[in-house]
Amino acid sequence: MSIEVLPVSGLPIFHEGDSISKEICDKIELKDGDILCIASSVYSKTKGFTRVIDSITPTEKAKEIAGQCKEDTRFIQAVLDETEDLILEYPFVLSKLKCGHVGVRAGVDNSNIERGFIIRLPPEPMISAEEIRCEIKEITGKDVRVIITDTCGRAFRRGQTGVALGWAGMPAIRDFRGDTDLFGRVLEITEEAVVDEFAAFSNFIMGESNNGVPAVVFRNAPKWEGHDSLFFTSDEDITIKALKKK
Amino acid sequence: MSIEVLPVSGLPIFHEGDSISKEICDKIELKDGDILCIASSVYSKTKGFTRVIDSITPTEKAKEIAGQCKEDTRFIQAVLDETEDLILEYPFVLSKLKCGHVGVRAGVDNSNIERGFIIRLPPEPMISAEEIRCEIKEITGKDVRVIITDTCGRAFRRGQTGVALGWAGMPAIRDFRGDTDLFGRVLEITEEAVVDEFAAFSNFIMGESNNGVPAVVFRNAPKWEGHDSLFFTSDEDITIKALKKK
Repeated sequence: MSIEVLPVSGLPIFHEGDSISKEICDKIELKDGDILCIASSVYSKTKGFTRVIDSITPTEKAKEIAGQCKEDTRFIQAVLDETEDLILEYPFVLSKLKCGHVGVRAGVDNSNIERGFIIRLPPEPMISAEEIRCEIKEITGKDVRVIITDTCGRAFRRGQTGVALGWAGMPAIRDFRGDTDLFGRVLEITEEAVVDEFAAFSNFIMGESNNGVPAVVFRNAPKWEGHDSLFFTSDEDITIKALKKK
Repeated sequence: MSIEVLPVSGLPIFHEGDSISKEICDKIELKDGDILCIASSVYSKTKGFTRVIDSITPTEKAKEIAGQCKEDTRFIQAVLDETEDLILEYPFVLSKLKCGHVGVRAGVDNSNIERGFIIRLPPEPMISAEEIRCEIKEITGKDVRVIITDTCGRAFRRGQTGVALGWAGMPAIRDFRGDTDLFGRVLEITEEAVVDEFAAFSNFIMGESNNGVPAVVFRNAPKWEGHDSLFFTSDEDITIKALKKK
């Protein structure tokens, strides 16, 4: 059976207080089992997870880092305010957030928002995903799965791809441990980060820049079993340890 | 318009000398513009990019690394034979391959192959992708785009996802540089690794273990402009530099 990937077209430019769930349900008839990917930037705008850049007073630390990487001192302060573990200061700021996600500039963004404002990532994306899932259940009666996505660079390869920040209604990782391969051999590679694979492809549909498609629906995707331990702790991750020693 | 994602079901277990292109064209009616993702493991088997583990004589270096990470010495020798730049020896071997891809154990695999054999990644995956694209054009007359995929871990996040090794008929990266956002501001994040986003989602459809779906078709995907510079050089990549210093 084929999977259908549907852009949710015609959504408005969102502002604080708007209901993403309601607008999406107005534009597309959701079905049980659909996986709905939503761009975190749009979610953050509706929830007021934004800041006025002029209202931010940079600390000495922010000034020091901003000088090194030639960024606005107030912008870097906003990045530090989101950072739980500062992995790298130069040539760019790389942060681990409280939710576990690791991102350049802590995911703070000044694209696709009015000048003078910046967007923060949703601070509790798992709760955000569950909240949208519940709202959609309430509006439509349908049982959908939800992924809040971000666009993010990575190690070893150029370019950004979509990744999952929060999810609800499914486990993040499909766990094959103990399964056998086609020749009856127990598999060694066994944990597939499925929510990131959906987030990645949804990002292709969303596009960046002025395409303006902040929500994508995957229809007919089978279910999987697994767990939610998507983010390495700083101790587990050899890359974080190496970058911090640098 | 929605994108359709179709598993190519019913493919046989492949052996050296088989034509993947022919088998795929037998199982699905391809259309102009389709993006066809093929698992590198299956491609390698048909091309004989496999080795008999008993035929490999480990060097002292392979014995030393194998002792540290508790692997078979001959397996590690096979990994070193594929490695252009050895990034990490412990707790696992991480290699940069000649094609630019960075992978644990240089992508050498002993799953989904008869016991006593190992599978190498296709050494020239760009040529492989172009070759399949040409074969399909010859068989069907259709102009498809091709991605050779692998399953791979990453930094910061647990679990593997699909990535692109080689591609043909499209640029790897969609380049938004100079584009503006919804508010007319020039974008800062501007290079989207689109082939990896397709590879990632194709990996969900392929599954690991005994699912046996080594090919996936994306239908109705729009075209994009960009470039093919997907792999960082070791000098460009701050993560490689940090891991090598470790």
